[in-house]
Amino acid sequence: MKIETISEQRCFDGVQGFYRHESHETRTAMRFAVYQPPQVRHGPVPVLFYLAGLTCTEETAAIKAGAQQHASQHGILLVMPDTSPRGAGIDGEDEDWDFGSGAGFYVNATMAPWSNNYRMDAYVAQELRSIVVETFSVDSQAIGIFGHSMGGHGALTLALKRPDTFRSVSAFAPICAPMQCPWGRKAFQGYFGGDQALWASHDATELIKAGHRAGPILIDQGTEDQFLAEQLSPAKFEAACQEYGQALRMRMQAGYDHSYYFIETFMADHIAHHAKCLQEIRSGRSS
Amino acid sequence: MKIETISEQRCFDGVQGFYRHESHETRTAMRFAVYQPPQVRHGPVPVLFYLAGLTCTEETAAIKAGAQQHASQHGILLVMPDTSPRGAGIDGEDEDWDFGSGAGFYVNATMAPWSNNYRMDAYVAQELRSIVVETFSVDSQAIGIFGHSMGGHGALTLALKRPDTFRSVSAFAPICAPMQCPWGRKAFQGYFGGDQALWASHDATELIKAGHRAGPILIDQGTEDQFLAEQLSPAKFEAACQEYGQALRMRMQAGYDHSYYFIETFMADHIAHHAKCLQEIRSGRSS
Repeated sequence: MKIETISEQRCFDGVQGFYRHESHETRTAMRFAVYQPPQVRHGPVPVLFYLAGLTCTEETAAIKAGAQQHASQHGILLVMPDTSPRGAGIDGEDEDWDFGSGAGFYVNATMAPWSNNYRMDAYVAQELRSIVVETFSVDSQAIGIFGHSMGGHGALTLALKRPDTFRSVSAFAPICAPMQCPWGRKAFQGYFGGDQALWASHDATELIKAGHRAGPILIDQGTEDQFLAEQLSPAKFEAACQEYGQALRMRMQAGYDHSYYFIETFMADHIAHHAKCLQEIRSGRSS
Repeated sequence: MKIETISEQRCFDGVQGFYRHESHETRTAMRFAVYQPPQVRHGPVPVLFYLAGLTCTEETAAIKAGAQQHASQHGILLVMPDTSPRGAGIDGEDEDWDFGSGAGFYVNATMAPWSNNYRMDAYVAQELRSIVVETFSVDSQAIGIFGHSMGGHGALTLALKRPDTFRSVSAFAPICAPMQCPWGRKAFQGYFGGDQALWASHDATELIKAGHRAGPILIDQGTEDQFLAEQLSPAKFEAACQEYGQALRMRMQAGYDHSYYFIETFMADHIAHHAKCLQEIRSGRSS
């Protein structure tokens, strides 16, 4: 497994790096970003995956989210994958901003022609996770996940499906019930066809109803988010969590929209949430 | 004077806004960004101008510098101008990345055809300053200035030439002696022609030697900055400040480069520096 370093730059006493490799899941070259906090010099650190939203890349959060300072403070290594395969050679893959490239939705597509490359679920949770564990000084048993919008959907669903892999979870303005919104229906129809059971297995609200559980969930949602009413459905997810006993702290943030100005405002709280959850796991293991 | 609002978004309990107006100094439309901290609701706040570097725009620092959180904490209004006129219609204005558009160097050009529009010194220190004072809830007697690279040069020279306007000053990796580096010589030759006295009046190191003084200066400079040896000359500025009695704290930051990953790392210190200087001015005035 060959990982090519694109760049490494000092940031908050750690290293912000960008890397490229040939993925066996997506059968394309994939890029990802990693922030190594200064604490890696002294031993393995917890890991936190950040999944970005529609149209974003591995650069977006590294540049805009202001996460490195808090990862540096708490000693957490950040992993920021791209949002889809790029250059898979599929007809029309770059035509829509909400489907295909930049819009992988963190699922393993089952429909041709997407199924050959659009395997972002397996890519993030298995392949990239393995690469990070083998390449960096990390504690493979203390991995959390969070994300924004489509990436918030990805974080919730991956954590609910794999609670033993992703031990802490949070989201900014996530797509909470993709089966019930235009973005989600378009993506699921394209990647899965009409199989509603498959749709439900990638819908955070449906996963809660089906008995899946994750660690305590933190969600921040802006009240002035331009996508709140049509696409995000936090109330549906909150109701399901309440009915089925999933711990959730849903914070409606007055005046905030869907942008990284919103995300960076609450980034400190999210990384503190993960640091606390992952520290409890590490303490429990050692005691 | 008509200021058009392009966008306003909530950020760290304040407002990140982008605005556009017709400038009488540059005779073009100009854009600028302002971050209003939450404290504006309770009365006038100090102002801090951030001048960006080559190729940047009014968006660069707003997106990449992570300054809003500290401005929110200290109650300082940030002003982020563009780095040059745009679309002035001058032949070749967009051809070079280090001269013309994106590279105004915060001077008033005296050479045709640039002299008609490239008046970024007067634009920032007079026109935009007046607009900010008239438009936002600010203390016009508590204004500071800082910047990066070409914008660090701009901050140092504007503060040294106008210590009564800009009461606090700092810089990230500034061009400290533009007469002695390729970027500066190209810009000064183009904007001023061969008049060396005019060059010297826009060179921070020469201004110190000529007796200009500013408040205590904070400079951060990365040791791995790819432009350090050829373009920036912090040692020349430091020697002049020492010889001529200008207070300067020059911090060489091991391992950091010229990027916004460097800037955001030390942003908290810079805004704290300005907050302290401007608070002392306000306290002195009221006591």
